[in-house]
Amino acid sequence: MKHYLLAPGPTPVPPVVLQAMAQPMMHHRTPEYEALFAEVRRDLRTLFQCKNEVLMFAASGTGAMEGAVVNTLSPGDHIIVVQGGKFGERWAEICQAYGLHVLAVTVPYGKSVEPAMVAEALRRAPGTKIVLATHSETSTGAIHDIHALAGIVRGTDALLVVDAITSLGVMDLPMDSWGVDIVVSGSQKALMLPPGLAFAALSDKAWARVPEARLPKFYFNFAKERKAIAENQSAYTPAVSLVVGLRESLRLILSEGLPIVFARHDRLARATRAGVQALGLTLFAEHPGAACTAVGAPHGIDGGAVVKGMRKRGITIAGGQGSMKGKIFRISHMGYVDAFDILTALGGLEMVLADLGYPVTLGAGVQAAEQLLRQ
Amino acid sequence: MKHYLLAPGPTPVPPVVLQAMAQPMMHHRTPEYEALFAEVRRDLRTLFQCKNEVLMFAASGTGAMEGAVVNTLSPGDHIIVVQGGKFGERWAEICQAYGLHVLAVTVPYGKSVEPAMVAEALRRAPGTKIVLATHSETSTGAIHDIHALAGIVRGTDALLVVDAITSLGVMDLPMDSWGVDIVVSGSQKALMLPPGLAFAALSDKAWARVPEARLPKFYFNFAKERKAIAENQSAYTPAVSLVVGLRESLRLILSEGLPIVFARHDRLARATRAGVQALGLTLFAEHPGAACTAVGAPHGIDGGAVVKGMRKRGITIAGGQGSMKGKIFRISHMGYVDAFDILTALGGLEMVLADLGYPVTLGAGVQAAEQLLRQ
Repeated sequence: MKHYLLAPGPTPVPPVVLQAMAQPMMHHRTPEYEALFAEVRRDLRTLFQCKNEVLMFAASGTGAMEGAVVNTLSPGDHIIVVQGGKFGERWAEICQAYGLHVLAVTVPYGKSVEPAMVAEALRRAPGTKIVLATHSETSTGAIHDIHALAGIVRGTDALLVVDAITSLGVMDLPMDSWGVDIVVSGSQKALMLPPGLAFAALSDKAWARVPEARLPKFYFNFAKERKAIAENQSAYTPAVSLVVGLRESLRLILSEGLPIVFARHDRLARATRAGVQALGLTLFAEHPGAACTAVGAPHGIDGGAVVKGMRKRGITIAGGQGSMKGKIFRISHMGYVDAFDILTALGGLEMVLADLGYPVTLGAGVQAAEQLLRQ
Repeated sequence: MKHYLLAPGPTPVPPVVLQAMAQPMMHHRTPEYEALFAEVRRDLRTLFQCKNEVLMFAASGTGAMEGAVVNTLSPGDHIIVVQGGKFGERWAEICQAYGLHVLAVTVPYGKSVEPAMVAEALRRAPGTKIVLATHSETSTGAIHDIHALAGIVRGTDALLVVDAITSLGVMDLPMDSWGVDIVVSGSQKALMLPPGLAFAALSDKAWARVPEARLPKFYFNFAKERKAIAENQSAYTPAVSLVVGLRESLRLILSEGLPIVFARHDRLARATRAGVQALGLTLFAEHPGAACTAVGAPHGIDGGAVVKGMRKRGITIAGGQGSMKGKIFRISHMGYVDAFDILTALGGLEMVLADLGYPVTLGAGVQAAEQLLRQ
């Protein structure tokens, strides 16, 4: 059976990237690696749209999230979390693990926090050190308006820290020009790599906080990593094969061109939304993003049964996490995905829904997507 | 030019492992991954010679070292570090970053701490919570007698925590039968994988400490990882491609058989030592291990020049780190290495030493190694 990977991470890895990673192992303390790493560092700055170095860790994205917290805060600090899903909650959990005072600005799953709510929270809590937000909330498919949040936080002493794990390379996030202070991301989403690399980029305002941050840290020590990167190295052994792959995936992304990459993701997301809506299904997110489309499971049908039915036909999508289990399913259009992957997902979905007894006109979702994709 | 990787990590990756990792990406929340992970978990327990689950993190080995500290200790705790090189010092640095009281039992680089010194330190500091040691001190090539240390620590309330990053799969370390409480390791050494996976295995005595340990942690939270592993998953997205490779490398190691793998490493190490000594060079470690051989740079010759000369001929070895820079060079015989790699290293070394003006009989080191390897 052929396999189609359309879950929101890990995402498909292009053959050229797989081949690069299958070359014999390279040592990281060699001129060959340092030439490669210099190119990767330059291209990461282009991707992050920032002037400062992008730090890289052998870790899942969560590691860089923890790093953003422990490198900018001290015990007892007050922080605000923008929270509308599992990954917003993760910011709060990290801060709670370190004994910080968390003010959560929360909306129900599927909704997005209005920037005005954050402005109000900052007025009520003027000593807030950082505001932690999720650009693309992968668990619900919703996006937050980071541009507006940056405008609000920029005028305060607080830092804006953004989880861009499923938005970097999907949607525009010009961190320097918007004034975002820390952007963290991971390898296994729009970067089209296996999981295992985490990234963090800091503004000058964020770097100024690092020396005074007293939370303990070792592996995710940003200052130590910055010192190593100034010598074109990493503080600890880097995930060499993934960095080799990263060079290739950055070349793919930047040769396509960031604006075109963003437009492609937007187009595939709109086609997916048109397709599922043509089948009479509803979108779970009020403000859906271009990374993945969360779809409400129709009345009487378990979202998990949809995921299982798709898997039997060779297609991997994702179900709902935690309290959303069974209520939604999620189709990714991140990274190495094109129009025909969307038709595959919708075609599979139509057949699976029919199998499950949901009244569906076979081909109706595909038709709606094609109408949009032809343009 | 052909390339030969004989540095102490990353080490060469067997073609069958590279090919497995070059297969299309697999999602980790699928029956396919869970079948793979179940096999990996079982084989890791065999490799670690322990009954409890081996935890796995997307990280360098240092991440698991930090995890061992933050999951077993509370602020203000007293610990003992067994220290005779850069990696012993890393244990101390991690503990200092978390505000612990560190008693370092230190010997000069190249020496090994005598178990009696640790027994004496434990008598002087009876409140010690853990003793942190390095099995194979990669920076000097020396080994510590973990069996004897375990015998000493076993009778106390302290835990024995061992960095086995360059000893697991190289030298025998039966953690359960010796009574070692935590063993940490990494992927890019004898496991013959790219860097990016870290491991930690805990004894029952160590697990009993975890609930009361109050140092803050999130990504390297052992209890959370154990909960996830009980459901055959990881707490955060695993480094899927490396886990796919790990299945293959564990199959290779266990089909060769642990005793034979250990004997092979020992034989290659003895051949390397015989070879360099036949060239009139001296071993840096008083008690050298089977992972890598550290060789003193001959009088008037910079160890870095040896490393550079080898690189020009296609061979990557390692120089000395920190204060040992220029004074030593290190040849690895870990992982996917056989007799002819040793001859390659020695042959290259002979030519490079001659280039550098050191009086050497070409072939003398190779001859000594062959005499040993023929047996």
